[in-house]
Amino acid sequence: MKRTDPVLLEVARGDRPADVVLRGGRVVNVFGREIEDVDIAIVGDRIAGLGSYDGQQIIDLGGAFVAPGFIDAHMHVESTMLLPPEFVRVAAPHGTTGVVLDPHEIANVHGIAGIKLLMDQSRSLPMNLFFTASSCVPSSPLETSGAELSAADLAPLFDDDRVIGLAEMMNFPGVVFADAGVLEKIRLGLERRVVDGHCPGLSGNHLNAYVAAGISSEHESTTADEAREKLRRGMHLFIREGSAARNVEALVPLVTPENAHRISFCTDDRHPGDLIEHGHIDHVVRRAISLGLDPVTAIAMATIHTADHFRLPDLGGIAPGRYADLVVFERLEDLRPDRVFFHGELIAEGGQFMGSIDPRPLDGSAVAIGLSVRLPDDLNESRLRVEAPGGAIRGIEMDPHQLWTGQRAVEPKVVDGAIGADTARDILKLAVIERHRGSGNIGVGFVHGFGLRAGALASTVGHDAHNLSIVGTNDADMIAAARALERVGGGQCVVKDGQVLALLELPIAGLISVHPAERVAEMQAGLRAAAATLGCPHEDPFMPLSFLSLPVIPKLKLTDLGLVDVEQFEVVSLSAE
Amino acid sequence: MKRTDPVLLEVARGDRPADVVLRGGRVVNVFGREIEDVDIAIVGDRIAGLGSYDGQQIIDLGGAFVAPGFIDAHMHVESTMLLPPEFVRVAAPHGTTGVVLDPHEIANVHGIAGIKLLMDQSRSLPMNLFFTASSCVPSSPLETSGAELSAADLAPLFDDDRVIGLAEMMNFPGVVFADAGVLEKIRLGLERRVVDGHCPGLSGNHLNAYVAAGISSEHESTTADEAREKLRRGMHLFIREGSAARNVEALVPLVTPENAHRISFCTDDRHPGDLIEHGHIDHVVRRAISLGLDPVTAIAMATIHTADHFRLPDLGGIAPGRYADLVVFERLEDLRPDRVFFHGELIAEGGQFMGSIDPRPLDGSAVAIGLSVRLPDDLNESRLRVEAPGGAIRGIEMDPHQLWTGQRAVEPKVVDGAIGADTARDILKLAVIERHRGSGNIGVGFVHGFGLRAGALASTVGHDAHNLSIVGTNDADMIAAARALERVGGGQCVVKDGQVLALLELPIAGLISVHPAERVAEMQAGLRAAAATLGCPHEDPFMPLSFLSLPVIPKLKLTDLGLVDVEQFEVVSLSAE
Repeated sequence: MKRTDPVLLEVARGDRPADVVLRGGRVVNVFGREIEDVDIAIVGDRIAGLGSYDGQQIIDLGGAFVAPGFIDAHMHVESTMLLPPEFVRVAAPHGTTGVVLDPHEIANVHGIAGIKLLMDQSRSLPMNLFFTASSCVPSSPLETSGAELSAADLAPLFDDDRVIGLAEMMNFPGVVFADAGVLEKIRLGLERRVVDGHCPGLSGNHLNAYVAAGISSEHESTTADEAREKLRRGMHLFIREGSAARNVEALVPLVTPENAHRISFCTDDRHPGDLIEHGHIDHVVRRAISLGLDPVTAIAMATIHTADHFRLPDLGGIAPGRYADLVVFERLEDLRPDRVFFHGELIAEGGQFMGSIDPRPLDGSAVAIGLSVRLPDDLNESRLRVEAPGGAIRGIEMDPHQLWTGQRAVEPKVVDGAIGADTARDILKLAVIERHRGSGNIGVGFVHGFGLRAGALASTVGHDAHNLSIVGTNDADMIAAARALERVGGGQCVVKDGQVLALLELPIAGLISVHPAERVAEMQAGLRAAAATLGCPHEDPFMPLSFLSLPVIPKLKLTDLGLVDVEQFEVVSLSAE
Repeated sequence: MKRTDPVLLEVARGDRPADVVLRGGRVVNVFGREIEDVDIAIVGDRIAGLGSYDGQQIIDLGGAFVAPGFIDAHMHVESTMLLPPEFVRVAAPHGTTGVVLDPHEIANVHGIAGIKLLMDQSRSLPMNLFFTASSCVPSSPLETSGAELSAADLAPLFDDDRVIGLAEMMNFPGVVFADAGVLEKIRLGLERRVVDGHCPGLSGNHLNAYVAAGISSEHESTTADEAREKLRRGMHLFIREGSAARNVEALVPLVTPENAHRISFCTDDRHPGDLIEHGHIDHVVRRAISLGLDPVTAIAMATIHTADHFRLPDLGGIAPGRYADLVVFERLEDLRPDRVFFHGELIAEGGQFMGSIDPRPLDGSAVAIGLSVRLPDDLNESRLRVEAPGGAIRGIEMDPHQLWTGQRAVEPKVVDGAIGADTARDILKLAVIERHRGSGNIGVGFVHGFGLRAGALASTVGHDAHNLSIVGTNDADMIAAARALERVGGGQCVVKDGQVLALLELPIAGLISVHPAERVAEMQAGLRAAAATLGCPHEDPFMPLSFLSLPVIPKLKLTDLGLVDVEQFEVVSLSAE
């Protein structure tokens, strides 16, 4: 119902019984960050009032806590490898009732058609799903994506009220140096509401320029100093704790009672296994509390401060007129959502989803039916051959827990004039094959720190252009892995001696599965187990593999166009001389 | 310039000298409520960056503090008796760079034409002047105003971008009991941005209904308990400290680091003498600090928290891209604005206005030229005669420092069957004469606590319908005072023995002077001095006089329709029996 519905007001003033009264709960009042022992009256999808009410149904909370439903301030749902209905089914029991989605990944594969697929799949679900228009498709000119979206392409997206701003503007050099097309996109976002940022490591005068342009939030800070500077320049901070990047530990010490209202939580990326096993924003809240953050402050950062930033006055707090999106739990210190209400309906209890979801049919377009992996016909081992340039080469130094990489000078192992992997020194070959247009572009480089001892891993999830990324100990297995993914229309696989040891099919855009979350998580576990048999020591080697191609996070990355020095924002030669 | 102006970004990144660099200042960083020693670079009307910059002009602040310009969250500029250009000239030296105006007073006299006069007079001034559409004209059906504004009348106002919401919804019974016309106005405000509230004493379920309808701010709380409940229900609190109502002392103890971001300051009403002598929002900030509030928190409540509430991302903070609206002062504890910058220009120094204002011509309409006082032709003493009903009567119990009044049973002094004033017991006659339509409506009642010993006072400022209010010790002087104001087209006067002792002409709507502020203040001082010679003990007796007719603040008030019991929301008889 609307705010001005007379029935809402009638229940609020106590002249008509509420549909539901939650009695005996301890309300986490996020407005002043305090606990208030008060009953909650609900009518339809909204909270009618707090205080003394009669209701057709009385639910005794027996002293349990009630908080507003959690909101993820920034997330790519593609990272869950699930379509929105399946994501909601899994995330809702963790207390998530709102997410601001950036459909950046599918946009890089299928453009506006991909965005529209996700927006269509997000309708009529028991979760408040908002969108920001993906600003950087491709994320940089230093890679080949499946689409290029200009401001004119994005403009029609804003016809949908669910689009509340422009998504993370990764092209920070474009902003700072006033690229006309970039500024045009920012104007679109400012006209609608907000422009989200992405400027890892940006500082000083260049940060000033980035903020001056109107970008008002950011989630890439990895140190308290970096985050503090962004806060001081007026940005709203999203502290990110996802499957890929985890910044809560570094940033929670920054939170004070004075600045907490300018800080929110986001996951950015959340893999299906983590989502099922560890949770979503509730996991971030628990982690922040375990690191010493006041629980009520942590909850406020997961709710009202996010709603306020995005100007969503119907969300984020337990107050008259707002949506009855609520999370009930027993303990503040180790917050485990027990019951979850969305728009007044109990949709999850004890971790089990109890709501109803009518899956929307996928349409028959290429977006939906898996025509996103087009490899060169002549793809064979010779296309991966790298002539030794003489002298040291630039190697990518990988940290399995960070999106940032380093650069190290490597003396290559040369056989027959070509550089090969050298497992003895943990130098592996990395290839990124353009898969959208059949251009034949292949970038080849070398990475230290991956730890694979045999075989190859391949993935069509490869940020941000989502070309085909392959890491391997030998060219034959790398080609076999590529062909295996081409056959199934995208996914991730582990290959040894030409045999596919494990495979996860991702037929939608090469990013998203059509299976239930639990099945996807199982298949991911299979991939990890297979990689472990090949000697790879990392918990989830596909995570770093999918980010080694991301040319917007420093320092050295590999795209289909070659090695990219992100700080210089240019393709550089393999030779380190 | 716009946020995305390449010149702004060029200066921000340090590739082009700033117009002005403020060096060596201590920046009040309101985002995290802290002090930051950093230079400020300005280009055009905006802040380009904070940090190390070259500039064409360097201003050494020598360790002085720099805060964002102050914003008044809610004000009726008519209370200053000045047109906006003159208001700005006087308020700007006090550090005010933004005000959210509600043209409620002039709207009650001249309707949309009055609002448009103020909006026109507010153009091109060195202050950010925003408007909210006056929601309650008349403020209640219990009085006769000069205009009645429906939602359909208000809707065209929203064509102007400066209109950022609906103004204080005083008709809280109308909201709570779902009056269709009231809800239609609320929908207008919610569509635009925000709906401001006004619900003195509202609590419990009725407050829930009021908040549920979408009203998100309020400034009428007089106790910490009342304000706390409103905060807990999700309202943004405006702590008011004006010339009429003063709530800082009662409400400042409520402010915590956890809730301060949901609290702002406003003056509501500010008389010209107070504005000149004591200041504007700077005065409120000083007062809050003197009562123990942390100075940086007080400044944040006067700046960013207000800008955030009204969603004004270009205001409220010292950050790249925001307008260079700045206040420089020497001491935090006793904050006295020394220099004031608006949009990058120094507009005041040492309390002197240095900016330029081109007064806009008043048009020749009735709004501008003073045809707003139409008294009944047959107005004479007999119209003020009150037959004794027999027994006790309801008397208005006045507190000169509060808008709230009480009700007391009074044994009337009866002469020739009619009730008269009784100065021995401080019972005075009060009359409210409808002055807009010549309807002949006259309400007559009695007030205790005014303290006048002889003569009469009259005012065409009479909240909210701004009928002609007269308080007196005898009918002859009351009529003489009425006629004196009719002759000059409105104003305030003091009369004794038929002679006008002091007069302030307010020819615009009977509310606003055409003189400079200093002259208006002098004339007000003359009125006060004259009233004092008549024995009136109150510092400013015209203030309570102008509010004794306000039928939206409890308890007992007098309008042209008679005595109003505000809590019962009805006209009541004089008889207390």
